Amino acid sequence: MRELGVGLIGTGFMGKAHALAYGAVRAVFGDVPALRLEVLCDTPAAKARTMATQFGFARATDNWRDLVDDPRVDVVSITAPNNLHHEIALAAARAGKHIYCEKPLALTLDQATEMEQVAAEAGIKTIVGYNYVKNPAFMHAQSLVGAGAIGDIVHFRGWVDEDYQANPDQPWTWRARISEAGLGALGDLGCHLVSMAVGLVGPVESLIADMQTVHKSRSLADGSGQAPVENEDIATTLVRFVGGVRGSLCASRVAWGRKNRLNWELHGSTGMICFDQERMNELRLYQNTGPLAQQGFKTILTSPEHPPYGSFCPAPGHQLGVNDLKVIELAGFLRHIAGGAPVHPDFSDALEIEKIVHAIAESAQSDARVYV
Amino acid sequence: MRELGVGLIGTGFMGKAHALAYGAVRAVFGDVPALRLEVLCDTPAAKARTMATQFGFARATDNWRDLVDDPRVDVVSITAPNNLHHEIALAAARAGKHIYCEKPLALTLDQATEMEQVAAEAGIKTIVGYNYVKNPAFMHAQSLVGAGAIGDIVHFRGWVDEDYQANPDQPWTWRARISEAGLGALGDLGCHLVSMAVGLVGPVESLIADMQTVHKSRSLADGSGQAPVENEDIATTLVRFVGGVRGSLCASRVAWGRKNRLNWELHGSTGMICFDQERMNELRLYQNTGPLAQQGFKTILTSPEHPPYGSFCPAPGHQLGVNDLKVIELAGFLRHIAGGAPVHPDFSDALEIEKIVHAIAESAQSDARVYV
Amino acid sequence: MRELGVGLIGTGFMGKAHALAYGAVRAVFGDVPALRLEVLCDTPAAKARTMATQFGFARATDNWRDLVDDPRVDVVSITAPNNLHHEIALAAARAGKHIYCEKPLALTLDQATEMEQVAAEAGIKTIVGYNYVKNPAFMHAQSLVGAGAIGDIVHFRGWVDEDYQANPDQPWTWRARISEAGLGALGDLGCHLVSMAVGLVGPVESLIADMQTVHKSRSLADGSGQAPVENEDIATTLVRFVGGVRGSLCASRVAWGRKNRLNWELHGSTGMICFDQERMNELRLYQNTGPLAQQGFKTILTSPEHPPYGSFCPAPGHQLGVNDLKVIELAGFLRHIAGGAPVHPDFSDALEIEKIVHAIAESAQSDARVYV
Amino acid sequence: MRELGVGLIGTGFMGKAHALAYGAVRAVFGDVPALRLEVLCDTPAAKARTMATQFGFARATDNWRDLVDDPRVDVVSITAPNNLHHEIALAAARAGKHIYCEKPLALTLDQATEMEQVAAEAGIKTIVGYNYVKNPAFMHAQSLVGAGAIGDIVHFRGWVDEDYQANPDQPWTWRARISEAGLGALGDLGCHLVSMAVGLVGPVESLIADMQTVHKSRSLADGSGQAPVENEDIATTLVRFVGGVRGSLCASRVAWGRKNRLNWELHGSTGMICFDQERMNELRLYQNTGPLAQQGFKTILTSPEHPPYGSFCPAPGHQLGVNDLKVIELAGFLRHIAGGAPVHPDFSDALEIEKIVHAIAESAQSDARVYV
Repeated sequence: MRELGVGLIGTGFMGKAHALAYGAVRAVFGDVPALRLEVLCDTPAAKARTMATQFGFARATDNWRDLVDDPRVDVVSITAPNNLHHEIALAAARAGKHIYCEKPLALTLDQATEMEQVAAEAGIKTIVGYNYVKNPAFMHAQSLVGAGAIGDIVHFRGWVDEDYQANPDQPWTWRARISEAGLGALGDLGCHLVSMAVGLVGPVESLIADMQTVHKSRSLADGSGQAPVENEDIATTLVRFVGGVRGSLCASRVAWGRKNRLNWELHGSTGMICFDQERMNELRLYQNTGPLAQQGFKTILTSPEHPPYGSFCPAPGHQLGVNDLKVIELAGFLRHIAGGAPVHPDFSDALEIEKIVHAIAESAQSDARVYV
Repeated sequence: MRELGVGLIGTGFMGKAHALAYGAVRAVFGDVPALRLEVLCDTPAAKARTMATQFGFARATDNWRDLVDDPRVDVVSITAPNNLHHEIALAAARAGKHIYCEKPLALTLDQATEMEQVAAEAGIKTIVGYNYVKNPAFMHAQSLVGAGAIGDIVHFRGWVDEDYQANPDQPWTWRARISEAGLGALGDLGCHLVSMAVGLVGPVESLIADMQTVHKSRSLADGSGQAPVENEDIATTLVRFVGGVRGSLCASRVAWGRKNRLNWELHGSTGMICFDQERMNELRLYQNTGPLAQQGFKTILTSPEHPPYGSFCPAPGHQLGVNDLKVIELAGFLRHIAGGAPVHPDFSDALEIEKIVHAIAESAQSDARVYV
Repeated sequence: MRELGVGLIGTGFMGKAHALAYGAVRAVFGDVPALRLEVLCDTPAAKARTMATQFGFARATDNWRDLVDDPRVDVVSITAPNNLHHEIALAAARAGKHIYCEKPLALTLDQATEMEQVAAEAGIKTIVGYNYVKNPAFMHAQSLVGAGAIGDIVHFRGWVDEDYQANPDQPWTWRARISEAGLGALGDLGCHLVSMAVGLVGPVESLIADMQTVHKSRSLADGSGQAPVENEDIATTLVRFVGGVRGSLCASRVAWGRKNRLNWELHGSTGMICFDQERMNELRLYQNTGPLAQQGFKTILTSPEHPPYGSFCPAPGHQLGVNDLKVIELAGFLRHIAGGAPVHPDFSDALEIEKIVHAIAESAQSDARVYV
Repeated sequence: MRELGVGLIGTGFMGKAHALAYGAVRAVFGDVPALRLEVLCDTPAAKARTMATQFGFARATDNWRDLVDDPRVDVVSITAPNNLHHEIALAAARAGKHIYCEKPLALTLDQATEMEQVAAEAGIKTIVGYNYVKNPAFMHAQSLVGAGAIGDIVHFRGWVDEDYQANPDQPWTWRARISEAGLGALGDLGCHLVSMAVGLVGPVESLIADMQTVHKSRSLADGSGQAPVENEDIATTLVRFVGGVRGSLCASRVAWGRKNRLNWELHGSTGMICFDQERMNELRLYQNTGPLAQQGFKTILTSPEHPPYGSFCPAPGHQLGVNDLKVIELAGFLRHIAGGAPVHPDFSDALEIEKIVHAIAESAQSDARVYV
């Protein structure tokens, strides 16, 4: 496998997560291409330089176009603010770079659709950072479903809750403005839940939704008054999947005490599987097998029995962390670039996820069923 | 307080629960009228006699009209099959008896409405067996809300799941026929959830719902073929409460592994309260108070600090059981009959609960918002 | 079965629990003798009369000797203060009454031994209130062990913690004086743990222990100064059972936040069972069976599959309470009196439990192994 | 800060963990010296070369003496089998290298004592891999204790359980031979528990212990018969700390279902703190503050409020993994080498931990109290 040159745009929450993944992926897995950390981009330039040193990148820039055009860069990581994803991705695709883009693809469906088309035309490889579907516990759930461990799927319920906008006294930020942030709880959190729902049940047929903006305005940080919160704090959806499964999806960014409660229940005809990201190393499984007196929900701790956990740790129950999920995501992408099996969600899969998220918003506004 | 004569109709699940409550209530509380267990009704007569001996009733009958007309009976407990509630309740009310009726009031809203009106005209006292709202943990949640412990309520989510119809191999029963059973999961389980939602948040303004019948037919027990399941296995609802709180309600009788999972989350502007009936002696509370580094969900074990727990046990955390809730329910009703404060849910409250439940079914059929 | 007359001495925590059990046992089970609630004893006489009315006893007295000598009394419940058990039990046994005695039998082993001997000579039937071993979850654990569900038992760990003496500011009470209370945490709590350990693993061979009195003195309630705490707040024991199983036992009455945390782990050669009384309707079971990737601790909710749960409630997972355990305990005792199978722990079993508890105290004082 | 050259001996469980930590530490923290990954040592040489490529080391060797003597190496990581720690560490210290050694220091106290002395004489800096004390949740517990959040410490209980030797059918390995493995459960697991106990409560004064070898012999893998298991499967200890706190310590490698259950309870005069490594991002805290009706154990999710969590992830509750603890451990060590504050446990601290572990074994053999 030939070496790959990496360019990383952004050094925030996800920028650092990408940097850590690039630093760890080969030591963890062995079977991935060697990497050269070529260019780091952030603004201002001084920050880019500092972080390049910290993250181990060879060069720094404050101009993402230079990074995208750099011939030594093969893979571009896009962790810039969401409203820049579209422009950067188009340029990178057209420059023939493989793209590792953070979710969501874009603020609007039109932009996301264009990104998917341009990437397809360019023939580049893509992946989008829905990293929770890379959790060995999640993939074990998928394999249990595939093996019929809970029979036919009949119902899905999911929630994704955080409390980062719960405090009414927090000042107004760009997150509240649609032109900068796009959707609210749906765009930040709901799309992760949708990625898991689709990964377990398959495509969505139609839905009906309701939304709330709990804190309708917030104080400006400079004390000059109040500004409106334009997007939703909470969204709740009745969903029908293709094939007949039904269920519900809830997302909230104002749920006090919830820090990353991305959890779901998968109801089958012979059992149930439950998961909660706040206990990301556990899967709960109920099966209608054996004597009734001994039936109960089983708490399965992730272990080397659940690949690729064992690449991180040979001992069961020792716990992966959230940054490890990025390493798994990246490893698959690098293997795919090197000729291995396709990985998901790519731009095309991500577009389907985001169509659902936008359909939720549309239904909530129209108070009517929307077909996806 | 003068003694009260009791007549009990039915000796099944709820019949026994009423019998146990009548036997325990005065020993637990002291401040309730003395009771005479006068008449027990069931069919056939031999069963009524056996159970009258077991439950300590003076007389037995297989004719509920005799019980209702018995002058020594002051209070009638109705735990007969749901499709008999209406006729018995009308007769009891017209005979001037106080009525302790199991939920739901009736199979249809018309019947329930008539029951409420006849009871009101008769001037009798009523209570309906929504006993989960009598849990000291639930009442503590109400008092926390009242004291502002989680600020303003902004969102409510509830689920009530069991698995008594989850097995596709179970034979067809009367529960599957609308004319006998009325609604499915909504009538059996959903109404309990609604009683809690309304008890915490208040009346419902409107809703949109979806329903599923997962097992569309079942084998007849005599092997003569299949019969259809006419009512819903699962119902899910987007709900808007009067005053602006929104949320969701889910009910399933096919949720493998769930035995009595009547649980909810109450989202407030400064905190959250959660409850699960499968751990009925626990309440979970998050408050945005004190240093962030020490914040977390607190598990409060029910104790004498949560009346009337202490009437059952002076030591904290020793656990009440589900039958104890019936004793609390009955005690309030007996005090009310003896001149004490009104108790809820009476027939009028129960009618409101059942209006919501029927609105859910109506919305699911019309695929449109229904105003309650 | 002929009717049995009941005399109850004491109306406190356990007195009320006995009264509730007498009131409920026949309605719950059917197959037990009918009862006449004859005499209630407490002091002063006015309190005895009030409580007799509340509990439904025909007569009241402030002299337990009158109760014991009453020819209409067949069964005597002893829930008086622990330092009276010995004298009352001797008198009751000599009067030919069956005895339902609260734990511990007595303050000293000499007294307990005499009680056991006198009861044996009198040929009466006895039971001692170690009600936690009557929990359907506990009995299910015993039956799992018997069926080899976790292979050979190799290790036992148990804890029993409460916090009723945790607050250093609580005033001095009789509980702190050996002549009135006997042992501290061991006598109150530790003996319950021992009853479970012995019920699961069998007799103890020897042990080594350590004890602590955390709060060495307390303020007298009248403000006249401090008085010493003579007995232990915490005891911890290394235990060897007959047959080779080893383990540990811990008891504390100063464990903040623990309300009734009587919990244990039973380690087997092919699995493990865990229990916690604060979640008394749950049993946790791990078995080394099936694919490793699906192994985990299973949480079994008590249900009609775990007799006699179904006599209280036909629906699984609906939760028994602590008072229900007394009903189960009493039912077995009444059946035994009526000619049924022996019940445990009787005075003889209880003596063995209390020998272990006193051996713990002796070892802690001598800092050396004690053979039981 | 000048760059440091790294030599790593071993590529197993801990070897990989060290390699990942060296790869991540600067990207995570920024404020640590830059590293050069110079030499990797393992046997055979081909394996060393393969793993050097995977882990990013410049050179490979199968001779640890070459690594230790390499002038470009400043820091030596010792993750070789436990029976080699002593010899390697002496050589590295004498060569003036800083040492990052996996626990335990050595198989015997004599060896460990010599290692501590030689390191002190050499003036090198050391750290030993008791990484669980680097968990932000653990350090938060320490800071809560320091701030008086649970008053005076009165009692400590700890357990550390795994099941890697629970299966009687597993073949005999070197782990069962004292000359190769040293102690059993105590050496592997118990020392981690001791590191936490000492980190929370301070030094141990004396103890009494018991041990079990549950599976007394095992089949040789080549089918040639059975070989004895020489060391302990389970050890249990009554412990007295300097200053008066008492408690217990339990370690088992045959506890079915436990994968990394390193858990403890810290009992204080006004509260309690509990922790379980299988849920390593949670800390449970009970405080006797506020209204009794609202008291309960609080589950605190690790967050940026608990440094250095925020260096891995700016969002609360997103979960660290076990490998992240190594990064924290290493960062402190690197800062110390660069002139920063001392780090613990160094060789001197580790010697104290291992004295306690060996005292446990000694007491179990003598059946008497041992003073540490």
